[in-house]
Amino acid sequence: MSDTTTDETAAEIMDGTYRALCEHGYAALRMQDIADETTKSKAALHYHYDSKHDLLLSFLDHLIADFSEKLGEAEGETPPDRLRDFVGQRLTARDREAHQEFQTAILEIKAQAPYETAYRDRLERFDEHLHAFLRTILAEGVAEGYFDAALDPDRIADFFVTTIDGAETRHVAVEQPIEDAREYLLDHIDETLVIGPEEVTAE
Amino acid sequence: MSDTTTDETAAEIMDGTYRALCEHGYAALRMQDIADETTKSKAALHYHYDSKHDLLLSFLDHLIADFSEKLGEAEGETPPDRLRDFVGQRLTARDREAHQEFQTAILEIKAQAPYETAYRDRLERFDEHLHAFLRTILAEGVAEGYFDAALDPDRIADFFVTTIDGAETRHVAVEQPIEDAREYLLDHIDETLVIGPEEVTAE
Repeated sequence: MSDTTTDETAAEIMDGTYRALCEHGYAALRMQDIADETTKSKAALHYHYDSKHDLLLSFLDHLIADFSEKLGEAEGETPPDRLRDFVGQRLTARDREAHQEFQTAILEIKAQAPYETAYRDRLERFDEHLHAFLRTILAEGVAEGYFDAALDPDRIADFFVTTIDGAETRHVAVEQPIEDAREYLLDHIDETLVIGPEEVTAE
Repeated sequence: MSDTTTDETAAEIMDGTYRALCEHGYAALRMQDIADETTKSKAALHYHYDSKHDLLLSFLDHLIADFSEKLGEAEGETPPDRLRDFVGQRLTARDREAHQEFQTAILEIKAQAPYETAYRDRLERFDEHLHAFLRTILAEGVAEGYFDAALDPDRIADFFVTTIDGAETRHVAVEQPIEDAREYLLDHIDETLVIGPEEVTAE
């Protein structure tokens, strides 16, 4: 990104990139497609970003910042409630078509990671943010007595990240609704992680 | 595939396609790259297959047949043993580099599914074969009294497919070892699905 790119211009280009990725996917995306989704010309985009690659890296950085902010918004009085709220939000496709289109572009980028260390770097940051968020909620839930003290927050967080990734991949590859994984993870929280009334009574 | 393609020729081309996909990935793959991995010329490949697309569809069909055969080979006296054997085999990368290379090509194809119904069709068959295999083992385990009678084989099978898909995606995207998901699923079998000694005694 150019030093003279204003926040407003950057925000407009990021929004246009999102729409262009949904419409064209990653592989077929051209700078012109992004320009068509903004008030800028293709030449203006090239003034702000050296290349499509540079623009896409800025877009991923923008997504990571946005994602970190959203993670902080999980609502609930207790750690199990915040975990349920997060799983419910993350694995609900409000607009199924737009969700699948965008996840398709993200999956294309994931498949490029072995060839492209700058993508790998961004994908690792997404993965780590999500993992750290889940690990923290799980550790808080254990410390506050809501979750089974024997559970390993690091390991359960890892399992949640893997299952969420799988739900998003299957949604793109075979149109499996992501909500199926949501129901499974919500049941898993209640049946396996949360300490049941009988266990609390037993203490 | 041409009607005159012998089984031996087809097998050689399929093996060559596997190696070429590992080396070049899906997007960059050319017929010449496949020819280079066989004793055939590029012209000979075009005699057997109309296009790269046609050859790749034959390759996916070949993988599905191979996969179905492998599913029948899960070993063990009981359904839980066969399930453990399958999870252990499926989520162990004998050769980490080759595994990641091949899974990268498969992930590229998964990301093409929304644009390409012939790929979607093959990916759905993989997904359904795997799901049906797991559902059958789980239902057998319930019928034979090894698994909790309250479990829903269809739903648990779906969760296993999603987690396996997620493990393969994360291996490509962020180099997360697939064995982490293996350990989680093996524990899940023993801790949540299998009826524990105390529950057997209670009956």
